[in-house]
Amino acid sequence: KIYAITPTYARPAQKAELTRLSHIFMLVPNLHWILIEDSNTTTPLVRNLLLRAGLENRFTQLNIKTPPEFKLQGKDPNWIKPRGVEQRNLALTWLRAHANVDRHAIVFFMDDDNSYAVELFAEMSKIQPGRVGIWPVGLVGGLMVERPLLDSENRVAGFNAAWRPERPFPIDMAAFAISLDLFIKYPQAVFSYEVQRGYQESEILRYLTTRDQLQPLANNCRDVLVWHTRTEKTKLNAEDALIRQHKRSDEGIEV
Amino acid sequence: KIYAITPTYARPAQKAELTRLSHIFMLVPNLHWILIEDSNTTTPLVRNLLLRAGLENRFTQLNIKTPPEFKLQGKDPNWIKPRGVEQRNLALTWLRAHANVDRHAIVFFMDDDNSYAVELFAEMSKIQPGRVGIWPVGLVGGLMVERPLLDSENRVAGFNAAWRPERPFPIDMAAFAISLDLFIKYPQAVFSYEVQRGYQESEILRYLTTRDQLQPLANNCRDVLVWHTRTEKTKLNAEDALIRQHKRSDEGIEV
Ligand SMILES: O=c1ccn([C@@H]2O[C@H](COP(=O)(O)OP(=O)(O)O)[C@@H](O)[C@H]2O)c(=O)[nH]1
Ligand SMILES: O=c1ccn([C@@H]2O[C@H](COP(=O)(O)OP(=O)(O)O)[C@@H](O)[C@H]2O)c(=O)[nH]1
Ligand SMILES: [Mn+2]
Ligand SMILES: [Mn+2]
Repeated sequence: KIYAITPTYARPAQKAELTRLSHIFMLVPNLHWILIEDSNTTTPLVRNLLLRAGLENRFTQLNIKTPPEFKLQGKDPNWIKPRGVEQRNLALTWLRAHANVDRHAIVFFMDDDNSYAVELFAEMSKIQPGRVGIWPVGLVGGLMVERPLLDSENRVAGFNAAWRPERPFPIDMAAFAISLDLFIKYPQAVFSYEVQRGYQESEILRYLTTRDQLQPLANNCRDVLVWHTRTEKTKLNAEDALIRQHKRSDEGIEV
Repeated sequence: KIYAITPTYARPAQKAELTRLSHIFMLVPNLHWILIEDSNTTTPLVRNLLLRAGLENRFTQLNIKTPPEFKLQGKDPNWIKPRGVEQRNLALTWLRAHANVDRHAIVFFMDDDNSYAVELFAEMSKIQPGRVGIWPVGLVGGLMVERPLLDSENRVAGFNAAWRPERPFPIDMAAFAISLDLFIKYPQAVFSYEVQRGYQESEILRYLTTRDQLQPLANNCRDVLVWHTRTEKTKLNAEDALIRQHKRSDEGIEV
């Protein structure tokens, strides 16, 4: 079983993004979706989407709001504050309390806007108990692909990251998945607001593994099976004009 | 059978976009994918992606390059020139020559960057011979949702478009699908470079239907099953620096 942990927040494209992400779950039967909404309640939008996708026994819907001091404001560039910290930690708490830890399982942090190939989940299933699997990620860190560099014995010898290569694990959140037993063995492993930009991955991984213990996957890190795509912010100028007249295009319609 | 016509062009996120789009085809068995590459040859990237998705008997791979005078340049905003005209017309030529026109089938123009719900294809299957089906599209035209307005007898009485509402059919390319027999009956129906911005949909539809003949679908045009999402242009500053040193992150790797 693979647990996919997805923080998500309300915005115009949320339903579009979660809809196309739900196709992965419809295609990969051993995936369980933990969706954590960044809000004060869970929403019917997310719940109905999960039910319509036929995932009734394969999801956990949680919610926790990012404290206002950590939330992005108006025109803030998206990198100035960490995103998803609170939500991923709540999912880890839920997993430690509810997952069947006697059976081998995998934990993956699956952002709601990336693009995933179904083959990625077959790769994750190869992760051994007690280990962290790793692979390349496309379109991230200013590069076409960020990836681990392997030595002649196919062990991780380094990384090709251009941005902050001095990080202990200079990789994206989408670059790895973790054997569940490690989260039980190391209960202190959590995400933190107290780390520098770009250090969330290093923060969680430093509790769980060392570089030389990483398990290279995806054809010895030569196949790209996940891409750090981002969706354009929707221009809603006509909608804003309607709203000023106390009207809206989506009256009674969930978009 | 539904024929989905998708123009596509090489860019950093192309494989990511086509990968997530291929999930729809893996989930909807009666879909046939006509992919038309905007290039001088078909590419192994697209072909291998289709084969890996298990679509060997369900796709047609074509190519035709947009003439340079119509191609977007450098920092051109994407709306100044029509996109996909040449490619969609080639697909229509292919369909008129190769599709089995004795069996009822549907034609849909499916851009490679939008988000689609699988339910949309069940709706399309309801389109009657000789008719054009129509439904709402999310996140387009500056609105949360652009949609047909129906009268008390559930016929299309108008549209809520805010942008160029005077167009004969003020709707997006993703808002409709067409009974294949109409393309046979009206062989002159093609897209054109000679129309104003925003008029491609009106151009093709004016040959094929009238407003009052449109068939409203998706719960009388109250459900949103397709969204006009756009993917952010990938920032590749570190890659550009590598290239100046005659290196690249994706040497020998398809991203
Ligand atoms: O205020 C926010 C912003 C983001 N996210 C989620 O956190 C994850 C990472 O955010 P985003 O994709 O915006 O970050 P990126 O890595 O693309 O910069 C995504 O699943 C978002 O839905 C969230 O829950 N609350
Ligand atoms: O030079 C180009 C630009 C776009 N397209 C394709 O034409 C369709 C519409 O383009 P795009 O999504 O960029 O337009 P939008 O409607 O989002 O502005 C998409 O399937 C693109 O892949 C193309 O074949 N060649
Ligand atoms: Mn993201
Ligand atoms: Mn588009």
